[in-house]
Amino acid sequence: MSVPYKQAEHKLTMIPGPIEFSDPVLYAMATPSQAHTSPEFVKTFQSVLQNLRKLFKSTDPKAQPYVLAGSGTLGWDVAAANLINKGDKVLVLLTGFFSDSFADCLRVYDADVDVITAPVGDVVPLDDIEAKLAKEKYTAITITHVDTSTSVVSDVEKISAIVKKVSPETLVIVDGVCSIGVENLEFDKWGIDFALTASQKALGVPAGLSVFFASPRAVEKALTREKDLTFFASLKRWTPIMKAYESGNGAYFATPAVQTITALKVSLDEILSESLDARFAKHAEVSTKFKKDMEKLGLKILPVSHDVAAHGLTAVYFPEGVNGADLLGKLATKGFTVAGGIHKALVGKYFRVGHMGYSVYEGHVDQVSAAISDTVGELTK
Amino acid sequence: MSVPYKQAEHKLTMIPGPIEFSDPVLYAMATPSQAHTSPEFVKTFQSVLQNLRKLFKSTDPKAQPYVLAGSGTLGWDVAAANLINKGDKVLVLLTGFFSDSFADCLRVYDADVDVITAPVGDVVPLDDIEAKLAKEKYTAITITHVDTSTSVVSDVEKISAIVKKVSPETLVIVDGVCSIGVENLEFDKWGIDFALTASQKALGVPAGLSVFFASPRAVEKALTREKDLTFFASLKRWTPIMKAYESGNGAYFATPAVQTITALKVSLDEILSESLDARFAKHAEVSTKFKKDMEKLGLKILPVSHDVAAHGLTAVYFPEGVNGADLLGKLATKGFTVAGGIHKALVGKYFRVGHMGYSVYEGHVDQVSAAISDTVGELTK
Repeated sequence: MSVPYKQAEHKLTMIPGPIEFSDPVLYAMATPSQAHTSPEFVKTFQSVLQNLRKLFKSTDPKAQPYVLAGSGTLGWDVAAANLINKGDKVLVLLTGFFSDSFADCLRVYDADVDVITAPVGDVVPLDDIEAKLAKEKYTAITITHVDTSTSVVSDVEKISAIVKKVSPETLVIVDGVCSIGVENLEFDKWGIDFALTASQKALGVPAGLSVFFASPRAVEKALTREKDLTFFASLKRWTPIMKAYESGNGAYFATPAVQTITALKVSLDEILSESLDARFAKHAEVSTKFKKDMEKLGLKILPVSHDVAAHGLTAVYFPEGVNGADLLGKLATKGFTVAGGIHKALVGKYFRVGHMGYSVYEGHVDQVSAAISDTVGELTK
Repeated sequence: MSVPYKQAEHKLTMIPGPIEFSDPVLYAMATPSQAHTSPEFVKTFQSVLQNLRKLFKSTDPKAQPYVLAGSGTLGWDVAAANLINKGDKVLVLLTGFFSDSFADCLRVYDADVDVITAPVGDVVPLDDIEAKLAKEKYTAITITHVDTSTSVVSDVEKISAIVKKVSPETLVIVDGVCSIGVENLEFDKWGIDFALTASQKALGVPAGLSVFFASPRAVEKALTREKDLTFFASLKRWTPIMKAYESGNGAYFATPAVQTITALKVSLDEILSESLDARFAKHAEVSTKFKKDMEKLGLKILPVSHDVAAHGLTAVYFPEGVNGADLLGKLATKGFTVAGGIHKALVGKYFRVGHMGYSVYEGHVDQVSAAISDTVGELTK
């Protein structure tokens, strides 16, 4: 055991979201009641919306940040219900469970979905994407930046560049649930049209918020569409509300999650207190060290190479002959919650460790690494 | 000034939701991270679902409670998207802004909406409802139990009895956002099919949760419908998740709002520590006293009579010659946030004071009453 760890007052939540939260973020969750249109809360929400522009590296005033009570999944509905019309062709790059579910969501809204399925643990080859886009006219392409089921990271910059070259009218939709705040994403520069995430991932805030960002042409498309498909997920209804709060005025469509948004304000202040690039580098460094720790133990990571491995989590195969449930159970008794695998083809064969945000800065990743080392030793001796 | 009040550390939020929260509820909001499928959180969510059955006075095991990350508004989408098919006739009883918005939501999902509009400050006459139901076949009727814009309370028991008599196959859908936890609602006994609320009202929990309850036939209808209209609001997807948690097992469709649900557990424990009927009586008592306080000041309440006035809030006309913004501003400097009116016909002419949950038990209602008395004195002297 190279790093000391002790049973925490509560188990450290080292799954790929919800992650551990800083004390100031948790205190903000306990903010006494404020009216959703009070000057105090309007100022909080204004700060959140302004800072989301920085998080998405966007300076275009016509791009639009949104925060809704909900979850990451709701962001899929928002994309599908506002940007897609019945029968529109959508190209889904499938890198795991979450890309697959996003495709399900698109089908609910009557999109005509084409899928390119990556080999398990790998990304979709760029040439395949280019060939598909050249052959067929797609209203949108969806990229799961990091598929939380496989820990595979797709190269959004390169994929978006191909879209711009071959089919510039195709909207680029990025599921950034397990990437935004960990992996670099340059919304304006790369030409992204819609990117979504959730509070409990690298944003470092308890679950309960759907957070997303839309390009000027995505906003325009949503605001001018003929028919709304939902009420709650309608950008026609939410856009004026977000604009009001960002300009310092309260407005009402549905009651925002005051306390969780206040926690998001605190977390964004923490995140933006260093440069985003420094944050991404720190996550890459901790991630690489953790992956190497696992490999030194003789364990194999799920992605086919480090080049396609995400920096906010690591998916690792259980050691040969070790019962996965035993390993997770022993880690729990040592004070760490890690996650089982959820890729349909590999359930029960691997586990996932999250390393995003607070835990990356507080040394939790080395602690869980040491605990895994001890546990593997106990189970294989 | 009959009751002493002092500037609190924060302004008391005396609007009809978000309401003030108890300290234990706020502490629960700051619960350190737990995985959404951890044994700790599963136990919490199980308790919440079991206790919601008590809150809705339901003992039918085939009725189903749900808690989703979202807001009260999302509950409208759930009702419309799961219980209504394109072209279905729905009868909306319109008693204010919120009934009107619910009708908008139903139209988004292609319901054929008929509206009976009550006079401002009054309820829809029972005879009109009976006549309409006798003449036309409705898939559902919607009742806004308390319309937060007018503070008018509809007689859900009597309306539902009429439905059962005249058109028993019509689903009874109740928007209980400003009623559940304050006004009596007997889900099974009255034959309600769907009732929805939100966390920040009488449930006494920060905003961020959509809470609703469905009858066996409503669940059956949702589970057997041919086509889903949304992904996030689909009861086909959520029903197995809720059943799993209630039976003590984690399950995943979208990440639940762990901390806010933990706060709901604490609040439901508090609410159910006395009998519900005692709670309703306490609210009625405090509400009646407050309304009489206002009338003693020469102010007029918006409902046409006390018989149709809700117990969780009071809507009061501004005194003649007093600028509403001045009154609300002065109350804010005295430490109280109350709400302006939002009924389209009467904006700027009245204000609303919430008196639900914690504030009812902590004496806040007498304090705000005294502050209003002082303020009216100052503005009319």
